[in-house]
This record gives sequence, structure tokens and C-alpha cells, in this order.
Amino acid sequence: MTERNFTKEDVEKALRGIVEDIYDHLDKGNIPKMGVPTRTKQNITFHKRKGVWTYGKNLTWRSAKKMDGASMILRSLYMGEFINTMLEQSRSSTLREMYYISEGWDLGKFSSQDESNRLAEDLEIITGAMREDFHLRPEEDGSRIVGNITIEETNRKGVKKKINCRDDVGDSGYGIPYNVEKEKIRLLEADADFVIAIETGGMFDRLVENGFDERSRAILLHLKGQPARSTRRFLKRMNEELGLPVVVFTDGDPWSFRIFSSVAYGAIKTAHISEYLATPTAEYIGITASDIVNYDLPTDKLTDQDKQALKSELTDPRFKSRYWRDEIELMLKINKKSEQQALAKYGLDYVTDTYLPEKLGAIGMM
Amino acid sequence: MTERNFTKEDVEKALRGIVEDIYDHLDKGNIPKMGVPTRTKQNITFHKRKGVWTYGKNLTWRSAKKMDGASMILRSLYMGEFINTMLEQSRSSTLREMYYISEGWDLGKFSSQDESNRLAEDLEIITGAMREDFHLRPEEDGSRIVGNITIEETNRKGVKKKINCRDDVGDSGYGIPYNVEKEKIRLLEADADFVIAIETGGMFDRLVENGFDERSRAILLHLKGQPARSTRRFLKRMNEELGLPVVVFTDGDPWSFRIFSSVAYGAIKTAHISEYLATPTAEYIGITASDIVNYDLPTDKLTDQDKQALKSELTDPRFKSRYWRDEIELMLKINKKSEQQALAKYGLDYVTDTYLPEKLGAIGMM
Repeated sequence: MTERNFTKEDVEKALRGIVEDIYDHLDKGNIPKMGVPTRTKQNITFHKRKGVWTYGKNLTWRSAKKMDGASMILRSLYMGEFINTMLEQSRSSTLREMYYISEGWDLGKFSSQDESNRLAEDLEIITGAMREDFHLRPEEDGSRIVGNITIEETNRKGVKKKINCRDDVGDSGYGIPYNVEKEKIRLLEADADFVIAIETGGMFDRLVENGFDERSRAILLHLKGQPARSTRRFLKRMNEELGLPVVVFTDGDPWSFRIFSSVAYGAIKTAHISEYLATPTAEYIGITASDIVNYDLPTDKLTDQDKQALKSELTDPRFKSRYWRDEIELMLKINKKSEQQALAKYGLDYVTDTYLPEKLGAIGMM
Repeated sequence: MTERNFTKEDVEKALRGIVEDIYDHLDKGNIPKMGVPTRTKQNITFHKRKGVWTYGKNLTWRSAKKMDGASMILRSLYMGEFINTMLEQSRSSTLREMYYISEGWDLGKFSSQDESNRLAEDLEIITGAMREDFHLRPEEDGSRIVGNITIEETNRKGVKKKINCRDDVGDSGYGIPYNVEKEKIRLLEADADFVIAIETGGMFDRLVENGFDERSRAILLHLKGQPARSTRRFLKRMNEELGLPVVVFTDGDPWSFRIFSSVAYGAIKTAHISEYLATPTAEYIGITASDIVNYDLPTDKLTDQDKQALKSELTDPRFKSRYWRDEIELMLKINKKSEQQALAKYGLDYVTDTYLPEKLGAIGMM
């Protein structure tokens, strides 16, 4: 169980650590510098005990010797101060607002939001905290859940509210907030056999309409494309705390394979917190290249970008299993991709009456 | 009050009308044809009584004399049959599924989803029904609401559920379903002075966190970029049935102006149902070009696409008022655009403490 007990005080202490470190450098007459793990595919390694991919030992250094490095260190201090203020006042801010806030930082002003986003991630790596602990949140909405699971959310006014994600919500389900850590969300109980994480809204709504949650004792979760951190964290917590197996149901193309790998193994951008976000036991149930052949699905030809992405996956350590190698090579060979909604070729019930029972049966889940 | 009382029987009758029309053509030995209004900027006119922009008198004809027209008529018949089956079985389908369903239609198969989407809109125009009456829905999620409004949703199992969009939901709010017609959603009551429709999720969450709904007796609605039809319809219904004024708060760029115009005046693509979707009394409260100057906001330079879009708006009948002309010309002159979150330059409270009170005050709303 990967418990997280990172309190507000821990975050404040860790941020103060950065300032003290820089102060020490200066005090000793040294030029301040900060080292962060290099965030590339070449620098992620499999962490056996945690069962996820995390950063390796390569560090990138930022030294105040150069103007770029000096600016970055200045910005780290400004950002640390801003985060500290938010924590004290129980406020939060979007990453976009954070970028605009820097307008008032003179030389510390960011030149793009990519820069401020990256720095927020660097601060996570250095402090061991998560962006959510900093009260920084992305633009994107969290995703939706429909199923017999009861949670308790502490809302913005501090009021605790029990919500059953099947009985207490409308058909669009329960919206996952950006912060799903324990102080915000408690998972109380679930009466279900597994969680099915679904890439597209169209397929999510199809499973809702077909009553797949009740008929198959499933909790339905909409991944919404490449899932937000809060969505992955919520999946992870349902898996660990409630013992629910997770299966992932996506389109059949290289980008969907990446969605699965970020759910199961962790994303390259967030490998420093894979242990909190990834669900290593998650299983992929399609659409696979084999499905395209076996179910004779409507397809599109692979684009050059698709082919490149598939080839890049062949060298990605997260896809090195026999299973993935075969599926990726088959997709390149047939030169076709398909969408989960293509199953509608056989009617609106085919996915819940035939496809999912067959695929879930093959992995012993139904 | 633009009441809609289009029952299942009305839809079935209207669809049958199309079939009968084609049958009559054939019966008389004529080549069947179908006429639909031309859907371009040049063919929308202002409907004084309804207060919205609707299609003019130009028709585009599809005749079975040519292969293209014949295919389109065949597809119309297939689609009508599919919709009829969904109505009988109380099912629904996404536009994407609808496209894949056509795999089984032999010569009627669509070559792209654009084609099937357009046909669904054509059928709306011909029958006077709405896509929602056909049980066809888009991929995109509806948006979210936070505020003191109570609705009653009839869920997929036919159970009616009262939901207060402030007290009965989590911080992510109430998710608007794709169908918000009366058989699905009833608006029971609201204790608020106005609705503020907000373009970005970041700003929506800002107003939620700052408690703008309670402090200013506002209902907060997230437009989510160019708003879905269900979002516009929900706004319209709050405006008409509960008498709530609507203000629109977006980024300051030509695309955001279009978002406003589709909320207030109707979108070109859906001008045949503007009277159900548009809220003519909606007011724009920014970000304007004047705001960029007056509030000295962080900006980006206009791109070539931005400039083109602004120039195109100068010839758009929906933007012909003095107010819009001045703002569009000023934006072209200063050659700058800005985002609503740029207000964070002055801190996280500036938007709710200063900007919105000033802008709402200027139109007598606060």
C-alpha cells in the first residue's frame, strides 16, 4: 500500500529546505545550483518493489553561473513563496494563473507557461511533494464516474458530503475534483467487482446507457483521453484501498496504448510520482490490433505520425513485454487503427453483450 | 416564451413525412429531391420576433438525378429508420456511433463523420425537430454548474431526482447531461440574481473557490470553450423559465467573441434552432479590447488567423452593433489579445473583488 501522508507542514518544510540550500551555497561563497532528474524516456527505470517506472540517476543541473540557471533559481524562490502563501490562506491556483502571477516577479517572470509548468514539476521532484500539495491545479476537468461506490468529499466550505456515484448523481455521474488526496476525498465503500476505465465520452455514455455498471457489477470511469493526474490517482486509490481490479478500454491506436501505459506504468512527465499515480495491475482489454482482425472492425489507415509513435513504443521500456511487442508489430503490419465506437458496426448492444464479456472472460474477469 | 412541445409521436410523424414525400415523387414518375436551407453566413437573417438569427430563404437541393444526391436521399431514409428504432426502444447513440452504424447500409455508407453529422442537422431542419429529439448526441461532455438552483433530473432508469447544484454536489458541480429537454430536466427553483457563463475551466474554478456564487448571488456555469448545444439550451431555459439574466465572461480574442455570439444570437451551424438555443438578452462582460487597455492586462500578439477572424466578424451580421464594431476595430488596432486568467496578474482575488464588480456595475447588474 503506497500511503501518502504529506501534510501542509511537510510541504512548507520542504520548500524552506530549497531556500536554505540556496542560502547555504551563497553563505559559503559558492554559486548556487539545483539538480533535478533528467526527464526523458532514456532516464526512466523499472522500480521492482513499487512495480512502476521511475526516473533513473541522470541529473540536469541548473547553476546560477549562467543567466538561464540564475533566472530559474530566482523563479523557484518566487514560486515557493507563492505556494507558501496559498497554503497559509487555504487557496489554490491554476497553472495558468501561476504563470500570470509571475508578471509581478520582475526578472523572475516566466516567458511561457511550459516553463512555469516544468518548474512546478521540478519542485515536486525536489521536495517529494505533489503539485496537488502545492494547491496548483491544471485547467482540464477531472473525469466522471458512474457506479456503486460511495465517497465522502470535503467541499470548499469544509462541509463533508457522502455521495454514492450511482444513486446520488445525475446521468453524467460524479465529477472527480482536481485534488483527490485524503483530506479532500475519502473512499468509503464499493459494491462492485472491478473498475473499467474508458477512453472516450461516447463509449462511457454507451456503457452507462446499456447499464453495464449494474449488469456486470462494474464501476465506469471516463478517462477523457490522456487522463488527468486526479483521474489516475483516483483509479489507483480505488485499486489499493477498495481492492478493485482495474481494466482499461481504449481506442486501438498508438496514442491509446500510451494512455494505457500511463495508467498502468506511469507517464514519463510524472515518473517521480508514478508510485502514487500508476496502477501496475491494470489490464488492457482493447481495442488491440488482434481485435481489429478478429472482429473485422471499421478502420483507418495509420498516418506517418501513428507509425512513428508505434515504432517509438517498440523502444519504450514500458512496452517491452511479448504481448505489447506482438500487438504493436501486428498493427504496423496490417497498417490499420480503429476506435472503440467502431464496435457500433454490429449495433449499439454489441459492446456490452459480446465484445466486453469476451475480452473480460479471456483475462478471467467475467 | 419559446415553449417546445415536440413529442416522440411528432418526431415519428415528421420522419414518416420525408419517406412519404420521396414515395410521392417516385409514384408520380418524378426524380426525388430534397431541399434544405443553405447554411452559410450569407444566408442568416435576423428574426425580429424571436430576437435571434435564423436561416434565410436560400435552399440547396439534393436531387436523385446525380449519384451524390441519390446517395444522400438513401442515407436520409436509412437514418430515419435508425432514429425510429431508437425512439421505439428508448435508446440513444452518439453521432460517432451513428456514423459507424452506417457500415451496414451498403451504398448508404457515409464516407466521413462530417457527412453523417450534416445529415442529422439537415433532418432537424426538414422535420423541425432537434437532434436531441432524435436521441442523437455529441461526443463532448456537457458543462458544469455551481449555484443555488434546484433541478429535477429523470435518470436513465426513469427515477426522478432533485438536485441542488450547490448543496447536493461536490466542488466540480452538477454535470449537464446531453439532453436537457423537459422530459429529462425540470428547473424547479433558483435563489440567485443572475447567471454568469464562463469560458474556461480555470476561471470557473476560480469563481467557485472565491465563493462568487454566494457573495454575489450568482449561478456559475462553465461554457467549456464553444458551448455544447445542451449548455446553450440550459442557459436559455434558466433565462426564460426562471427569469435569470445571463452574462457571458470569456477570454478577449475573436474566438471568444464567437462564443458569446453563439450564446446570444445563435450559431451559424444551428441557426434553424436558434430560438431554442440562443439567449438574445445575454450580455457580454469581457474580456474586451478596452479591458486590455484599461486594466493593462498581459497580452499576446494577434496571429494571422486572429486578424482574419476579427475581419470576418466585421462582416458578420451578428456583430454589426456600434459596440462590437468599436471593440473589434480596437483589438485590430492594438494588435493584442488576452485571456480571462490574465487578471491573475493582480492576484487571485482581483477578478471577484474588482474586475467583475466593475464590469457588472457598468451594466447595472451589481
